[in-house]
This record gives sequence, structure tokens and C-alpha cells, in this order.
Amino acid sequence: MHYTQKDIVEMDRIQRIKYMNSVSGIKPANLIGTISEKGQTNLAIFSSVFHLGSDPALLGFITRPTGEVPRHTFENLIKNDQYTINHVPSSFVKNAHYTSAKLERDQSEFEICGFSPEYVPDFKAPFVKESALKMGMRFKQTIDIELNGTILVIGEIEHLIISNAAIDAEDDVNLADINGVGISGLNTYYDLHKIDRYPYARASEIPNFKDGK
Amino acid sequence: MHYTQKDIVEMDRIQRIKYMNSVSGIKPANLIGTISEKGQTNLAIFSSVFHLGSDPALLGFITRPTGEVPRHTFENLIKNDQYTINHVPSSFVKNAHYTSAKLERDQSEFEICGFSPEYVPDFKAPFVKESALKMGMRFKQTIDIELNGTILVIGEIEHLIISNAAIDAEDDVNLADINGVGISGLNTYYDLHKIDRYPYARASEIPNFKDGK
Repeated sequence: MHYTQKDIVEMDRIQRIKYMNSVSGIKPANLIGTISEKGQTNLAIFSSVFHLGSDPALLGFITRPTGEVPRHTFENLIKNDQYTINHVPSSFVKNAHYTSAKLERDQSEFEICGFSPEYVPDFKAPFVKESALKMGMRFKQTIDIELNGTILVIGEIEHLIISNAAIDAEDDVNLADINGVGISGLNTYYDLHKIDRYPYARASEIPNFKDGK
Repeated sequence: MHYTQKDIVEMDRIQRIKYMNSVSGIKPANLIGTISEKGQTNLAIFSSVFHLGSDPALLGFITRPTGEVPRHTFENLIKNDQYTINHVPSSFVKNAHYTSAKLERDQSEFEICGFSPEYVPDFKAPFVKESALKMGMRFKQTIDIELNGTILVIGEIEHLIISNAAIDAEDDVNLADINGVGISGLNTYYDLHKIDRYPYARASEIPNFKDGK
């Protein structure tokens, strides 16, 4: 199929949302943990976390502004400058999916979706005990994306907590070993199998791909 | 292991780059195709493409500014407002990886890495024939990320070309069926296996996770 811009604009709204949430490729499955000023914990699945830089260690994610729909994650992290990002393990995918339901402000997705909050000294936001790779984030900046009214939230990693099994001999995080998960579209989940690891690509070492692969 | 911010700052530079490129979770593997004003094609692998919105249909990716290191992709797309984003199929992962090598301006990664350029009428930028899902993008905006000098590039989808096999009965793109690929860190590649698809999460339909999963 070939969809032009006109086809996309005229597409059924739900179909367009499904397609457009799929076309970037696989997305990471992360749970963002926050806490309100009253001590109410919140946990929500996000597929938009991305690497922004190593020095300083920055991650970004995309959210919508707080308007008619309350955005507890965003409200909490703006108020106390802290949040956690926790990888979803494949054995908790269904639990993690249901954190996207709209709960009342006094309900915690930790309890209702079967996750255990865990804390680090001098850091308020709750981590997810069941996660093999989790980060305590310090909020740094929001950037408004005027083209569609979304917000890019940028934070710096203050704590990186990672199971020893996750790091392989090459200092890579082995996402297959920690049962890492990807998301496509709004609600389809994938597990990950390592294909291969290739060396840093130097022009002088490119294999001969020209005569067929 | 628990790494604090101090540990991360003091970490060996290469180790920090590897870790920090892994901690966001799985990243999508996309090839960005561009063409220079002189007609020289360019193709480069990016792991930073992300969904920004459905209406209008926007995708973002992160790049570094053009400085000492030439950034042919960025230079080309700024000059003619067009680029393509093409999913890497798992049978071409090694070819795709080597597009990250620094070639001379008059060399094309299409030829050297074994990909075939493909064109759509009235659209200058080259698509990757071997890709099962590819998009023709219209450059919309750059946003400077002052925290680390990176650039967010935003474009709108003008063409979405997708093999019929990729769309399942739920209007989801089935990334397993099109041999989709994820990246962790700088150079480890994963293929994707569907775990499950869950319905839109309503508060009234949350399974009972409280008494154990």
C-alpha cells in the first residue's frame, strides 16, 4: 500500500492513530514512577522514552500537556523535580499495560497493577522493584513542540540501578537477558532476541556488500 | 549494581557511552535516505526516530550539529526539505550497520552497503527498496537541545509505503511479520517476537493483579 499525505489526513481517526503509532518501528516499554506532594504514588507506561545524550546522561520522553485530562505523571515530576524510569520485564507486560487506565488521583497503579514500590535514600520518587533496570531521574527542562502541542520532557540520570546479569562482557546491556520488551502501536508487545553485535563501523573495514550480500 | 550520578560522571568515557545508549531500552532501527543538490544519495542508520504525533503525522529524530564531522544526512535534508525513513529488515542488519562508517561525500552508502535506491514521483529523496515499511518525510522544524547541543529534527509523513503483509486484522503494523529490528546500545541488534496484544485499558476492566499476578 502507498498512502499519500492526503490519504493519511482523510484516514479514519482511530486507524490513523494506530498506524502512526506503529510506523517509527519498535518502541521501548518503560514505567515512569512519580509521587505527589501528598505522598500518593503514580506509575504509568510510556513508549516514548529515548536517549538524548551520554555526558551529561540525558533521557527524553514525550507527553501531552495537562488540560482536560489529568496527567499525574507530568504534574508530579514538575512539582518535585524527580521521577523514575523502569524497564518493563516481559513477565509483567500485562500488568504494565493496565497502568494506562485512567485511575482516580487517590489510587496507585503500583497497588492496582501489582507492582512493588522501592526507594533509594534521599530520593522521593518510587522505583519498580520488579524491574531489572531502573533509573532515578532529575527533571531538567521541558520543551514545547508547537507543531502539535506536545511536550518534550528532559531529565538527567541520578541513579542507575541494574541487575548484574544485564551487563555483558562488552559493557552492553543485554536486553534479552533481562527480558526486555518493545511496543508497537498502542498495545502490542514484543520480546527481544539478540541477532548479533557488530564492531564500530570503519570505512576501511566495510565487508563487500556490492556483489550481493 | 547501583551507579550514582557521581559514578556516571567519573565512568570511563567509552563505557559511559555504551551504558547510556542502552538504558532507554530497545530502539528502532531505521535508515534515513537523503540526496544532495548535486544528486549524490546518502543513507545512514539512526536509532533515535520516535513517534511525535498522529494528526499531523509527525516523527522526530535526534542528531548532532554539523561541525568538525560532516553530517551529510542533516545537510541534505535541510537543503531540500526531504528525507526518507526506512525500517531495517532483519536480513539486512549487517549492511545497515555499516552505513554508520564515515564515507567520503562522493560515495553512496546505497552502493557500498548493498541497498537499492527507489523513487516516488515528485519526491527527490531516495527510498530503500529492500525495506518493508518506508516513509517520505517533509522537514518541518529543528529544535536545539541546549542542554547538550543536540538537535531534534521534526518531519511530517508525506508518503507511507508499506507491504500489505505488514498490516494485521487490528490495523496494527506487525513488526514480527516484516522482520523488524531493534537496537540496543551502539551496535547490538535484536529481532522481535510478538508476546501479545491487549485491549485499550479501561479502569473498570483491570484484571485482579493485587493477589499476585
